[in-house]
Amino acid sequence: MRIYDIIKKKRDSQELTKAEIDFFVEKYSKGEIPDYQASALLMAIYLNKMNKQETVYLTEAMMKSGDVIDLSDIEGIKVDKHSTGGVGDKTTIALAPLVAACGAPVAKMSGRGLGHTGGTLDKLEAIPGFSIEMEAKKFIDSVNEHKIAVCGQTASIAVADKKMYALRDVTATVDNISLIAASIMCKKLASGANAILLDVKTGDGAFMKTLDDSFELAKAMVDIGCGMNRETIGMITDMDEPLGFAVGNSLEVIEAIETLKGNGPKDFVMLCETLGAYMLVLAKVAKNFDEGIEKIRDAISSGKALEKLKVFIENQGGDKNIVDDYSLLPTASKIVEIKSPKSGYISKIEAEEVGVSAMILGAGRETKEDILDLSAGIILTKKVGDYVNEGDILAHMHLNKEEKLQQAKERFIAAYKIVDEKVEPKKLVYGVVTKDEIKKF
Amino acid sequence: MRIYDIIKKKRDSQELTKAEIDFFVEKYSKGEIPDYQASALLMAIYLNKMNKQETVYLTEAMMKSGDVIDLSDIEGIKVDKHSTGGVGDKTTIALAPLVAACGAPVAKMSGRGLGHTGGTLDKLEAIPGFSIEMEAKKFIDSVNEHKIAVCGQTASIAVADKKMYALRDVTATVDNISLIAASIMCKKLASGANAILLDVKTGDGAFMKTLDDSFELAKAMVDIGCGMNRETIGMITDMDEPLGFAVGNSLEVIEAIETLKGNGPKDFVMLCETLGAYMLVLAKVAKNFDEGIEKIRDAISSGKALEKLKVFIENQGGDKNIVDDYSLLPTASKIVEIKSPKSGYISKIEAEEVGVSAMILGAGRETKEDILDLSAGIILTKKVGDYVNEGDILAHMHLNKEEKLQQAKERFIAAYKIVDEKVEPKKLVYGVVTKDEIKKF
Repeated sequence: MRIYDIIKKKRDSQELTKAEIDFFVEKYSKGEIPDYQASALLMAIYLNKMNKQETVYLTEAMMKSGDVIDLSDIEGIKVDKHSTGGVGDKTTIALAPLVAACGAPVAKMSGRGLGHTGGTLDKLEAIPGFSIEMEAKKFIDSVNEHKIAVCGQTASIAVADKKMYALRDVTATVDNISLIAASIMCKKLASGANAILLDVKTGDGAFMKTLDDSFELAKAMVDIGCGMNRETIGMITDMDEPLGFAVGNSLEVIEAIETLKGNGPKDFVMLCETLGAYMLVLAKVAKNFDEGIEKIRDAISSGKALEKLKVFIENQGGDKNIVDDYSLLPTASKIVEIKSPKSGYISKIEAEEVGVSAMILGAGRETKEDILDLSAGIILTKKVGDYVNEGDILAHMHLNKEEKLQQAKERFIAAYKIVDEKVEPKKLVYGVVTKDEIKKF
Repeated sequence: MRIYDIIKKKRDSQELTKAEIDFFVEKYSKGEIPDYQASALLMAIYLNKMNKQETVYLTEAMMKSGDVIDLSDIEGIKVDKHSTGGVGDKTTIALAPLVAACGAPVAKMSGRGLGHTGGTLDKLEAIPGFSIEMEAKKFIDSVNEHKIAVCGQTASIAVADKKMYALRDVTATVDNISLIAASIMCKKLASGANAILLDVKTGDGAFMKTLDDSFELAKAMVDIGCGMNRETIGMITDMDEPLGFAVGNSLEVIEAIETLKGNGPKDFVMLCETLGAYMLVLAKVAKNFDEGIEKIRDAISSGKALEKLKVFIENQGGDKNIVDDYSLLPTASKIVEIKSPKSGYISKIEAEEVGVSAMILGAGRETKEDILDLSAGIILTKKVGDYVNEGDILAHMHLNKEEKLQQAKERFIAAYKIVDEKVEPKKLVYGVVTKDEIKKF
């Protein structure tokens, strides 16, 4: 087998076999195929596409290029949730204890944030003492004992993906549905879950900007998951404005805790309920979606979820007292009011720009080497659909580096569109994709 | 300007600007763009194609990536002839003195053979003492004095082409018409001729196997030449069977000389007459094609062309006595008869296979480092359309390395198809492409 012939085949729009895809991924991750041949093949794949079967083979090969985690020592059906990421997405921090409190095992491996704001691991590390490093045995024992553990993804997972992504990033071959889907799913599948719930964000602040693309990506990922015998469901949810009110690591932890206390923002609560219900169904802890919703709501109102969060924090070395005393979390030295420049209805809050503003304040990384300011961020007070008078407070910025304020403020205010006509609040869930069905709401 | 954006643009089927194409070619030849980005762009060009204007810009940029020869000190209109190569193609050796004898200046830079048989330079070096290395001044003076000089292409011509070709060769991006046309034409244009005659070979032994592809390539090259203000004509000629009877360096020199003596093979004579007539028209030495043919025929019958060959050989340090005494040329120690395995009409002689047989005997290079046996080769005695009886001689193999004979013989005989029904001889010229017209014969 020669890589030349594989490139030629895809160039000529022919279907690649499992053996050919395995050959490429294996040799490329070992450095036995040079970048210039890989990039030619990736461009051919980009332009001539891969079908469902090829995409499954690609994902499987990428999954096998690194460690594949074995979670079979954990009792029950392990359901993983993956979000394609967005601004203000603190979902895992609320959802993991919620689902665990209902009896479904949560054995989650998370990544760091490479975008404007921190990832789940960064947010969890805002909790003093909390450690995301854990040996395999402790991880498995924790889930068996407490139903919950979250750790960092090892560098040896899906080795081919890291190499391929870096190459795609500089050769304009990133935004191809098959390649994106394979890149996400190979890591999820390598993490060992039995079932997967995908939260595909759509809109301005998401990787997928249009609804059609989001559905297409969800479908491709569901096909891959099911093609590899893991029950997989994809949800399409809004990321046209930030999720909830809080953007920034420490601030988002507080918002997640408040949600478990029953005081969460409407959109975020609804997202947690919906995702949670599907996870319980996938884990066979709930018979159907409605029973799932009921269980999730009960876990909040009974305080069981909050209790589970404390156990979770304590088990990973964190200070569980933060749940009752937020001053134990990193706190910014300065809080600045951001006022509305005009009166009217908020018709748009560009999520990505809000993310960039928070990053400027220190909440996110501009380069991989940047050190986060875990206390920095923004708390919105208004969302799309709300009416504001000129001079009303739109948000509070939490910061330590005052020299960054002006730049962040300008960017932030420019993210708002305020109009005279009444505006409907954004829809939160646009649809659900399962193996057999694409439901659009 | 960023190469990423240029890749993305071509990936999205947009037209590249002159500035973008210049940027790519210049930076890539300087090593400032890595191979993996160049190969992604080349695959995008391969699949989304380049239009006429982009192809002209690409060719111009590639031409400017190295030395551009200035032939303005040579009097008259310099016409260059380029053949896309084939088996038994000794055309330049006969054609250059023919055209020069008619008064058109021939200032030719040639390449070495990379295929099955040697290139023009290899063939000329079969003449004892003949040197293809020449300083620029001597080259120009020679053409002014004798109307003829042939030298080797300098390595510093079209630097980008060498790099790009090597990359295309390993990334399945060779056979794209724009890229092939640009690769050929950038070197021709850098060689400084005012007008160009292209001999695009078609058929089994040619780079372009089908007539349609050959016409398309000819048209693309004519468009480039004319787009850069050099009058350019493309001819489509047969390479379905070897040209003439001789294949092999020394043997082809003899056949070229015989042609100038009036004893050339019918197909080869006709090709020289046709190409020669067009060259004379392009050089404005003949008013039209018919006058061109007349002048060429006269140069043969009068002995002027043969005389010009002697002057040409002598001027470049060669022994002109070879013209009258072929034993002064490298001679093989063994000549072996190859007999027909059956009776019938020859319906096919696969040119490429004959080329490979000659290469096995030592006439061509298998790898770049191979040293040629200039005396080795094959002389056919029959061509397509001829009738043979079983045991009749099909060809003579000239060789020194007897251990290679069996392998060469088997390959050679397999190249023949002999049938019971009468077969028409092959057509030689399939058409002519000019700026305004595609004429198919």
